Amino acid sequence: MVVIMQIGATPEQVAQVEQAIERAGFRAFLNPGVERKVLAVLGVVDAQKATYSDRFARLPGVERVALISEPYKLASRETRAKKTVVQVGGVQIGSDTLAIIAGPCSVETREQTLNTARAVKEAGANLLRGGAYKPRTSPYAFQGLGPKGLEILDEAKRETGLPVVTEVLDPHDIPAVAKHADMIQIGARNMQNFRLLQRVGKTGLPVLLKRGPGSRIRDLLMAAEYIMLEGNSHIVLCERGISTFEDSTRYTTDVNAIPVLQRMTHLPVILDPSHSTGDWRYVGPVALAGIAAGADGIMVEVHPEPEQALSDGPQSLRPNDFAQLMRQIRKVARAVGRKVPA
Amino acid sequence: MVVIMQIGATPEQVAQVEQAIERAGFRAFLNPGVERKVLAVLGVVDAQKATYSDRFARLPGVERVALISEPYKLASRETRAKKTVVQVGGVQIGSDTLAIIAGPCSVETREQTLNTARAVKEAGANLLRGGAYKPRTSPYAFQGLGPKGLEILDEAKRETGLPVVTEVLDPHDIPAVAKHADMIQIGARNMQNFRLLQRVGKTGLPVLLKRGPGSRIRDLLMAAEYIMLEGNSHIVLCERGISTFEDSTRYTTDVNAIPVLQRMTHLPVILDPSHSTGDWRYVGPVALAGIAAGADGIMVEVHPEPEQALSDGPQSLRPNDFAQLMRQIRKVARAVGRKVPA
Amino acid sequence: MVVIMQIGATPEQVAQVEQAIERAGFRAFLNPGVERKVLAVLGVVDAQKATYSDRFARLPGVERVALISEPYKLASRETRAKKTVVQVGGVQIGSDTLAIIAGPCSVETREQTLNTARAVKEAGANLLRGGAYKPRTSPYAFQGLGPKGLEILDEAKRETGLPVVTEVLDPHDIPAVAKHADMIQIGARNMQNFRLLQRVGKTGLPVLLKRGPGSRIRDLLMAAEYIMLEGNSHIVLCERGISTFEDSTRYTTDVNAIPVLQRMTHLPVILDPSHSTGDWRYVGPVALAGIAAGADGIMVEVHPEPEQALSDGPQSLRPNDFAQLMRQIRKVARAVGRKVPA
Amino acid sequence: MVVIMQIGATPEQVAQVEQAIERAGFRAFLNPGVERKVLAVLGVVDAQKATYSDRFARLPGVERVALISEPYKLASRETRAKKTVVQVGGVQIGSDTLAIIAGPCSVETREQTLNTARAVKEAGANLLRGGAYKPRTSPYAFQGLGPKGLEILDEAKRETGLPVVTEVLDPHDIPAVAKHADMIQIGARNMQNFRLLQRVGKTGLPVLLKRGPGSRIRDLLMAAEYIMLEGNSHIVLCERGISTFEDSTRYTTDVNAIPVLQRMTHLPVILDPSHSTGDWRYVGPVALAGIAAGADGIMVEVHPEPEQALSDGPQSLRPNDFAQLMRQIRKVARAVGRKVPA
Repeated sequence: MVVIMQIGATPEQVAQVEQAIERAGFRAFLNPGVERKVLAVLGVVDAQKATYSDRFARLPGVERVALISEPYKLASRETRAKKTVVQVGGVQIGSDTLAIIAGPCSVETREQTLNTARAVKEAGANLLRGGAYKPRTSPYAFQGLGPKGLEILDEAKRETGLPVVTEVLDPHDIPAVAKHADMIQIGARNMQNFRLLQRVGKTGLPVLLKRGPGSRIRDLLMAAEYIMLEGNSHIVLCERGISTFEDSTRYTTDVNAIPVLQRMTHLPVILDPSHSTGDWRYVGPVALAGIAAGADGIMVEVHPEPEQALSDGPQSLRPNDFAQLMRQIRKVARAVGRKVPA
Repeated sequence: MVVIMQIGATPEQVAQVEQAIERAGFRAFLNPGVERKVLAVLGVVDAQKATYSDRFARLPGVERVALISEPYKLASRETRAKKTVVQVGGVQIGSDTLAIIAGPCSVETREQTLNTARAVKEAGANLLRGGAYKPRTSPYAFQGLGPKGLEILDEAKRETGLPVVTEVLDPHDIPAVAKHADMIQIGARNMQNFRLLQRVGKTGLPVLLKRGPGSRIRDLLMAAEYIMLEGNSHIVLCERGISTFEDSTRYTTDVNAIPVLQRMTHLPVILDPSHSTGDWRYVGPVALAGIAAGADGIMVEVHPEPEQALSDGPQSLRPNDFAQLMRQIRKVARAVGRKVPA
Repeated sequence: MVVIMQIGATPEQVAQVEQAIERAGFRAFLNPGVERKVLAVLGVVDAQKATYSDRFARLPGVERVALISEPYKLASRETRAKKTVVQVGGVQIGSDTLAIIAGPCSVETREQTLNTARAVKEAGANLLRGGAYKPRTSPYAFQGLGPKGLEILDEAKRETGLPVVTEVLDPHDIPAVAKHADMIQIGARNMQNFRLLQRVGKTGLPVLLKRGPGSRIRDLLMAAEYIMLEGNSHIVLCERGISTFEDSTRYTTDVNAIPVLQRMTHLPVILDPSHSTGDWRYVGPVALAGIAAGADGIMVEVHPEPEQALSDGPQSLRPNDFAQLMRQIRKVARAVGRKVPA
Repeated sequence: MVVIMQIGATPEQVAQVEQAIERAGFRAFLNPGVERKVLAVLGVVDAQKATYSDRFARLPGVERVALISEPYKLASRETRAKKTVVQVGGVQIGSDTLAIIAGPCSVETREQTLNTARAVKEAGANLLRGGAYKPRTSPYAFQGLGPKGLEILDEAKRETGLPVVTEVLDPHDIPAVAKHADMIQIGARNMQNFRLLQRVGKTGLPVLLKRGPGSRIRDLLMAAEYIMLEGNSHIVLCERGISTFEDSTRYTTDVNAIPVLQRMTHLPVILDPSHSTGDWRYVGPVALAGIAAGADGIMVEVHPEPEQALSDGPQSLRPNDFAQLMRQIRKVARAVGRKVPA
């Protein structure tokens, strides 16, 4: 941490900052600057102590405080250099083999879900996604089948053998979801629902944590940190598009986030091109982009009849389109030294 | 709703869209276009039916679907022209008199809270804010005093007579918070925590709903709709800054949102310049801007010793600065035909 | 400037960075860090030398370089504490009296321009705006009358006495524009057209420099620096909205930019609510917001028949609406201690 | 075009809109709506007439106008389905074979440029980039060698046979640049410098048009339209990152833009991962992402000694890193059915 003084700061103000630094348990080191004074804050700046930056920033004569290290610790690659591999059912996310998570946005009926599960399994997916509890922007939209949806997912899993990823919205539903899911999804809108993060963390189940559309990469890692502090590091991060001024797609896929996250954290990173584009016509190219950029997998929405879907029809692939995409994924994966589930 | 066909769409594709429209209970009307076909969807497009747009969009030959009406209903000024006045304790938000909500970011100690409450009351605030449960980006940061904080707020309220606004993060804490609070705050990070919205809605208590930093105005109104569908329309909306590329302030105050919301909805609208700037040096000018733009009030963070604050110190005003701001607010309020609490 | 090393950086890498710092004419000072090494770069880091940050950043073992001071110098309030007052005709921008710049987006006809000029003068404007050369997103849209437009502006000025602000797009047109204009406008789309900045700077005429919709405040100040390096500091900065994800208005008015700029630079700062909202219904409230936030003036588009305007009709006020706004501006200006032209 | 009336619009207001539509040379068709009136504007809405939307939008009783077709025409794939192939020297951009444009950000010295040119040629690039005129955010930064730089590029071209792409900033320099360049670059900051677009268009030379960091895809296509109206359709579009709130990279690569542009326009589309990330550590993965997403090529900055570069060192690859990237590109290109220059 470095405290930068205003150009006209008085010696008394500098002294006051020095004292505040020392009182907080650090050593203050005054850099012999010419234009303005800069104080380095020395000592182990652990995560707790990093919160002192706000206090120093508010002292008289201080222009601003610059942080030297990132504020997340457990999620940082500087803390743990070795890549984490998250085990979900028999699937290892973060390994050489890509995670291909596919399935309907919402579980709507038994038939729709089973048909989709069979089709994505056949095409090469190794995990099944499907929502029983749906966070919808509009309260008038389909909100999911709830417990009935979880049972349908169970059946799909028994039949296909695919481990199931499903979202939870309400701490109240965690026990029910935890009984059925192999991996719990925290949706983008709940990325900073800190109590939900903590409670899902406590289940010990693998967590798929999606980035909020208005959240920085740093904030995503801080959200992961909430889960990790519960003793659960079975976390897969998911880029799913951010809010920008570009309106030809629903969100902007932040493809930079893939190599940035691979460098910043040891946690596996996947891409959800269905949400990040919001348009089935762009899902394929963007899925391939994610894999080429080094993602550990993708998550794609598939529906047997997208024009009848109760949610996310416009961004859902038909089973045939998904099978075709899988053939392309196979080639691109090989080109970047990754494998696709057999 | 208007369905726009691709230029090369076949007569069969147009017929298929017409059928889908009729099957959904609307009438289809083919506009006699030259370049491309456009189908108007006639009939009452209620909120439920509006969700059909996604289905039509996915039919073969369709370029896209354009919505004609906004998707929120209960919150819309087209549904209810008369401005809603929200009663919180003895204070009417949305009336001629501005709501001035002030207090510490977090309740830290009894002394800090009582001192702040007295000071803001003295300066002219008519509501007290203070967090007992804090949503912090970092899990290492101060998370609030919890129930103990609620008791301190109670004492501050008894002493000053100011009604209390405080945030709830977890559905689990709603009963406790509802017992102490005059108004429940849904924080920006929980704007689309739909279960929390519903459960807070059910309490019947007034709700302060903050806009998420990555959320459109339309989405804020849809979030309000979730609460209103629970039979609770005692909602005050709060602009608190959005995520943009500008980095000289923490967020960008979307001051346009004030007149836009005043036109779109009958619900009262306030501004939180503390969060929307993140810097105490800019809180004053931006607070005045909000009032000049027609806000029904402001929410400001005040701390007796910002350099000791456990949260949001950099954006907190000292009591003296707040008193000074109140003197300016009084003048600007009068200039735009509003009153300030006596 | 502070060079932050990676955690695992070797002593050799640190030594290499030290040498590079010294070779560049600075002194390197190694802060005794625990977690990682941090090198302060000492000596006068003038603007030229600040460009070295990129070089240090690319040395092996370096994590990143943090700048301590802002990269603009002449425009900085740290260089010149006293506010600059820009004289345009008889008007002083940056003084107690607000600059009220009003007029049509484009000069379309003699009659339209003269009528508008008379109306805005009558209502209280002290400067006339009007475009003879128009930068239009679409090449099919009206591109301005060119030299004929400049002559019409001349006539309007002779009749009303209002100094004229008009835009230049092409270095080629500078001599013609300079002959007629009292102040030359650099439009938002040309904010980083550096050759245009330099050539307009050389005219010595006052410059109205508009912020680009994708540009940071820092970049706006760097653009001003280009003009100032030509020996011309008669510059007024103009916030006119930035590109964000919010789509209920054309741009997002960055009202924070007003106090930020007032703190960062000595140059006067105005707001253009017509472009920053793109909707005449919001121009009034946002104009008042700008003045309350401390702007030194506003620039507003006025057209006698907006529904016939060849450009920017949707955001243009009718003369009556403008006169009404001026009455409100008068009150708000007084509330914040500013005057309005008599 | 569709004109959407306010809910309370009077029959007189509707009639007035109908008249305005007819007067503008269209036919008005009133859709039999229930909630509100909607008027379809029939007839050929050519680009010129599309500008009427602003006028209709401003009539009393109108809520807003929705455009049905995109405003660009010549650049649209609806106008010309067949992909354009742009010939630059002997290289065909937009063909099966990828365009690999590489070279230094700035031409600094003869040696640096020749060494880089040889290295990128050797590694497999088929076009050479290099700036003689540099648009720099800071006026204190290196501004390019000017004419001397053009001569050095000439020499590099003679020696390696690589056609040269170089930027022009000032209409004044177009003749000189046109004499040396095989392709003229319009930089991101000049994307809406409409006079420059027109003048470069008139040269008839191939144009590399970069997207502005605050510009929508639609605006990029409108900028291309300016050039095409000069009779020049030898245009290659380049995504180079947009301004967003994410700050771990310099810009956000809008990878969605690749398939969106491939669908919207017949013009070739490339990606510049050097600028879109601003960090050499991410250039490789993002380059591969662009190719996987369907780009017709990439543009990459290469410097023999990035830590000595006078511009863009932090995002420049060393020749070795570029050669390594080319090996990966070869594999990914093959995986998506594209070739790489031999």
